[in-house]
Amino acid sequence: MPLNILFAARPERWETYERPLRDALDKAGFGDANLAQEINPRDVDYIVYAPNSPLQDFTPYTRTKAVLNLWAGVEAIVGNDTLTMPLARMVDPGLTKGMVEWVTGHVMRYHLGIDTDILRSAPEWMPRTPPLAQERQVVVLGLGALGATVAQTLAGLGFQVTGWSRSAKKVDGIDCLHGAAGLKESLSRAEIAVLLLPDTPATHNTLNAETLAQMPKGAFIINPGRGPLIDDNALLAALDSGQIAHATLDVFRVEPLPADDPYWTHPKVTVTPHIAAETRASTASEVIVENIRRGEADEPFINLVDRALGY
Amino acid sequence: MPLNILFAARPERWETYERPLRDALDKAGFGDANLAQEINPRDVDYIVYAPNSPLQDFTPYTRTKAVLNLWAGVEAIVGNDTLTMPLARMVDPGLTKGMVEWVTGHVMRYHLGIDTDILRSAPEWMPRTPPLAQERQVVVLGLGALGATVAQTLAGLGFQVTGWSRSAKKVDGIDCLHGAAGLKESLSRAEIAVLLLPDTPATHNTLNAETLAQMPKGAFIINPGRGPLIDDNALLAALDSGQIAHATLDVFRVEPLPADDPYWTHPKVTVTPHIAAETRASTASEVIVENIRRGEADEPFINLVDRALGY
Repeated sequence: MPLNILFAARPERWETYERPLRDALDKAGFGDANLAQEINPRDVDYIVYAPNSPLQDFTPYTRTKAVLNLWAGVEAIVGNDTLTMPLARMVDPGLTKGMVEWVTGHVMRYHLGIDTDILRSAPEWMPRTPPLAQERQVVVLGLGALGATVAQTLAGLGFQVTGWSRSAKKVDGIDCLHGAAGLKESLSRAEIAVLLLPDTPATHNTLNAETLAQMPKGAFIINPGRGPLIDDNALLAALDSGQIAHATLDVFRVEPLPADDPYWTHPKVTVTPHIAAETRASTASEVIVENIRRGEADEPFINLVDRALGY
Repeated sequence: MPLNILFAARPERWETYERPLRDALDKAGFGDANLAQEINPRDVDYIVYAPNSPLQDFTPYTRTKAVLNLWAGVEAIVGNDTLTMPLARMVDPGLTKGMVEWVTGHVMRYHLGIDTDILRSAPEWMPRTPPLAQERQVVVLGLGALGATVAQTLAGLGFQVTGWSRSAKKVDGIDCLHGAAGLKESLSRAEIAVLLLPDTPATHNTLNAETLAQMPKGAFIINPGRGPLIDDNALLAALDSGQIAHATLDVFRVEPLPADDPYWTHPKVTVTPHIAAETRASTASEVIVENIRRGEADEPFINLVDRALGY
């Protein structure tokens, strides 16, 4: 019997994903699968899912083998008690590459002081010699799939990279620290800090008044991770005092960032509209179909979410 | 007899270089060398040299074994007929690293469209998805020590990199083209062009009205090489027509760039004050002393200038 694959995401996603998903299904030998936006719940084999979909009650999906998330973040769905089947998060090689490129661009921008040149408003010939990357300490908070790749790419460009995670991890070429003492040590080195922690109760306000004060004076912060990682009032105060020189923020507690949010107009903040990690439909579709192939072959799913940890 | 090493550069350079040079001499076993800013010309064994030094007549330096340039560029001295001894240009690993970092920063900036975020003046949440580096063509004109390393670093970040040089060259991982036909083909691919050609009569106005028109519409130009590589009026016209979207220029025909130069205020130009490739005194001193060691050991000098080619 052909597979029934429910696409449960907003209609504009369907336009983006229908073709790439069908291509990937064809390529994997599931050309006869029924991929649709509406299927009788009790007949659904797999759900391709976005957490902002209207589908929030998974109870009637009695034979569904897995929920395959289109996004990396699962915090909006991981606490849903009706979701009892395996849940896979998206680890899209295109998304990872896009994230690595976005972080690399902003790290280089701070490292070289490029804003000075972009914002210069009058002729002024003032040469300056920035340190080399090998003299610059960058800290990556979070060593998941994204954080580890970001850390290794920055190390490849010559930066002194420290990685931090809640529990001990090893990443080739990176000085990895963990736990509370490791966080303090990491932050004390962070001329540039990149936030790539997941959004869990334990990571909320990782950067707060106390931890911001542990960073070197004049440090830079780049947050492509999750909005709640930062205590916003503490960051604004640290920017105003000069403790933090500048911040580039891609994610926020409320998105789109409200027009009256002080971040928009703060001279030491660059706001980007949640663009650091866009899933690319072609590469993401291949990942989703790979999990369908595994499900049908009774092989273990990849990128499964650990419900206890929340990511 | 101890070596006599003349330091012939502006006085402020002496302050920067005296200590690192003495350290490097010590380390190489020449701790007793006489390093000074004034030495009787006929006693000088080596000249550490900057082309803007008052020393322009090398005739009296009859026993000098080599002139060791502090800079990468030798165009101001290579035509000097009195300079008959071997001339080495600076290939400073610190300079190369700094150049690679500067170019990487500006390529990533254009690739990601970072200026949009830096210059945004009002709240506006407008997500965009730039292509991945693997979908972006970058062309490096010039495959010398700097160009080859820049090309390989950009390829390592995933970009599709084409390299071009006057005569055929091979660089691992880079699609290398050469000659007039190769230039046209290279430019036709150049969504982002990086200029790292030497300054010779043959490279003047490499980018002119004709060649700028061969680039894809909306291309970006990054010039950390030499000012005369670009026909400035042609570039200004191409920026105004939209053929070229934006240019970042680090070098100019006249430096410092005069205050009334249109580049300073052009909305599609970023001026940087010749900072892409700063020699770092510590690493450069080691290179200079390595050539002194080679001269004393009768080994061939490194980084010798080919007088016929001019670089």
